[in-house]
Amino acid sequence: MIKPINEDVEKIFKEKNTFLIMAHQKPDGDAVGSAIALGLGLKQLGKNVDYYMDTNIEKRLSFFPEIKSFNQDRFAGQYDAYVFVDCSSYDYARKPELLPDGPVKVVIDHHLTNVGYGDANHVENTSACAELIYRLLVRLGVAHDDQIAEALYTAISTDTGGFQYSSVTADTFDILKALYEHPNRFALLADRLHRTKGYDELKLYGKAIDSLTRHADDRLAWIVMDEATIQSYGGMVNVGDDVANIGIQLEGTVVAATVKENNPGEYKISLRSAEPYPVDVSLIADRHGGGGHMRAAGFNYAGDLADLKQELVAFLFERKAEIDACD
Amino acid sequence: MIKPINEDVEKIFKEKNTFLIMAHQKPDGDAVGSAIALGLGLKQLGKNVDYYMDTNIEKRLSFFPEIKSFNQDRFAGQYDAYVFVDCSSYDYARKPELLPDGPVKVVIDHHLTNVGYGDANHVENTSACAELIYRLLVRLGVAHDDQIAEALYTAISTDTGGFQYSSVTADTFDILKALYEHPNRFALLADRLHRTKGYDELKLYGKAIDSLTRHADDRLAWIVMDEATIQSYGGMVNVGDDVANIGIQLEGTVVAATVKENNPGEYKISLRSAEPYPVDVSLIADRHGGGGHMRAAGFNYAGDLADLKQELVAFLFERKAEIDACD
Repeated sequence: MIKPINEDVEKIFKEKNTFLIMAHQKPDGDAVGSAIALGLGLKQLGKNVDYYMDTNIEKRLSFFPEIKSFNQDRFAGQYDAYVFVDCSSYDYARKPELLPDGPVKVVIDHHLTNVGYGDANHVENTSACAELIYRLLVRLGVAHDDQIAEALYTAISTDTGGFQYSSVTADTFDILKALYEHPNRFALLADRLHRTKGYDELKLYGKAIDSLTRHADDRLAWIVMDEATIQSYGGMVNVGDDVANIGIQLEGTVVAATVKENNPGEYKISLRSAEPYPVDVSLIADRHGGGGHMRAAGFNYAGDLADLKQELVAFLFERKAEIDACD
Repeated sequence: MIKPINEDVEKIFKEKNTFLIMAHQKPDGDAVGSAIALGLGLKQLGKNVDYYMDTNIEKRLSFFPEIKSFNQDRFAGQYDAYVFVDCSSYDYARKPELLPDGPVKVVIDHHLTNVGYGDANHVENTSACAELIYRLLVRLGVAHDDQIAEALYTAISTDTGGFQYSSVTADTFDILKALYEHPNRFALLADRLHRTKGYDELKLYGKAIDSLTRHADDRLAWIVMDEATIQSYGGMVNVGDDVANIGIQLEGTVVAATVKENNPGEYKISLRSAEPYPVDVSLIADRHGGGGHMRAAGFNYAGDLADLKQELVAFLFERKAEIDACD
């Protein structure tokens, strides 16, 4: 049984005719997929849709024909509603500099930090915003369509590491079940979304593994990618997000630190802590003016790397008893 | 709606009391998970269960407490039924050298090559044998239990690359939905099953990436792991199965060849072909006395590696028109 969506949100989509869809800056798979699925669903119902979307979109997400409809301003000045998907705050939205008053603001998001900055809001802690979009489309009577299904699949798959994260629930699988009831090429999409790498990206991934050393009784995994190595494979753009997770894949690792030399002597540091160890790496990031949460944090650093390594070793040894108790 | 299971199979589990469960040699996650889920389910119903199982089980699967019950022979000589799970042929079963006649043979398997070598058989092309076990347990009225749920999750997850392969169907997600309706630690299991690597295994993975070169207009990815490198990280046991898939992760790769030097001058060759290209690598493996199927094949080789590479390059150029048409 697919759950409903807030009635005041549903009502706006039923009653209004012309929509401007927006998401957050640097849109990820959930932002792009949620926007496209919603936009195509509304068009199927005969509504007018524009997207004001960041076009700086990851290559793996570029296959949707609907991306060509982004930023066309076909209905500028005629909007009945502004829709914000997957966007936790109004400030973080990618929106026109001047957004004229008048249209009703609708927010659909799965980040619980969202205060509900719309006139109508549906904020619920689902695995991906696309779960909420799916439920809305069911309520609106939108029919199955390949591009909508692929947008929803892409959104959920990318936001859950391929249905693996602890954010996944029985409701998530209820939606996947419904999507899989139609012929699909999701297995091919899964490869594209999660496994395909460019040559330089793959080579840098290998270099990161080569550089990995262990410290603090093997509780710390330490990766350093120097500027010369990064430049020899096309620069920082080719250091994949997954490099930061290499260290916590190692058996017994509690904290993984990845050092990327952005410019000579200037580093971007990514920290990860491994389940189930009760270690909060955002404490380290906070000390250095960065941010994040318990399992993933980051900061910029321009000091001596040996000092930073020592700080992490000390941080782990202070927590040795709690860590060992989790083994 | 969870589908049923053949009535004659179901009837045996309802009526008989003492079972010997077997699976295939070198049991994988589906074999181990299916056997454990079935065994624990039968025990819950008050039945007697022995397992005759290969104990040479991958480390990532070793966490099930029920593995301690393997090969205990508590009911030897008293079996009402022999059960074969996830085992495509009688010859491939891991079974006692002498299996006395008398007990009824039940086969539950998802390999369509299975001819039905039991007295009662349920053979169906599901994503994992564990889908069939789940359906049987529902029919038998087995209650939810954490270890059973984790065995089923493990079996399905490992046989589908974490719910990503094209073998996954709406039925698969129907079962996952049911498993997720209870508190679980599946996200932690997913890490353990799919991402955790030992230090040597990770390092060899990095060395494989380092050695990758491209040929035939970048359609061939070529990885060579020499004996000295493999030995310096603990030997072949630490070359992960995923090394063979590195090459096809590269954008534009059609065939990935991975050469592992087993002994000086003796190589194990793994071939993969990438979706959606219509290239059958088993044709190459057949030429060299090996086997496999369209997307994955392998063989032993003791010749000149330059000759082999040239053979693959020629194989790809012969198919250039069909390959380019798929881009």
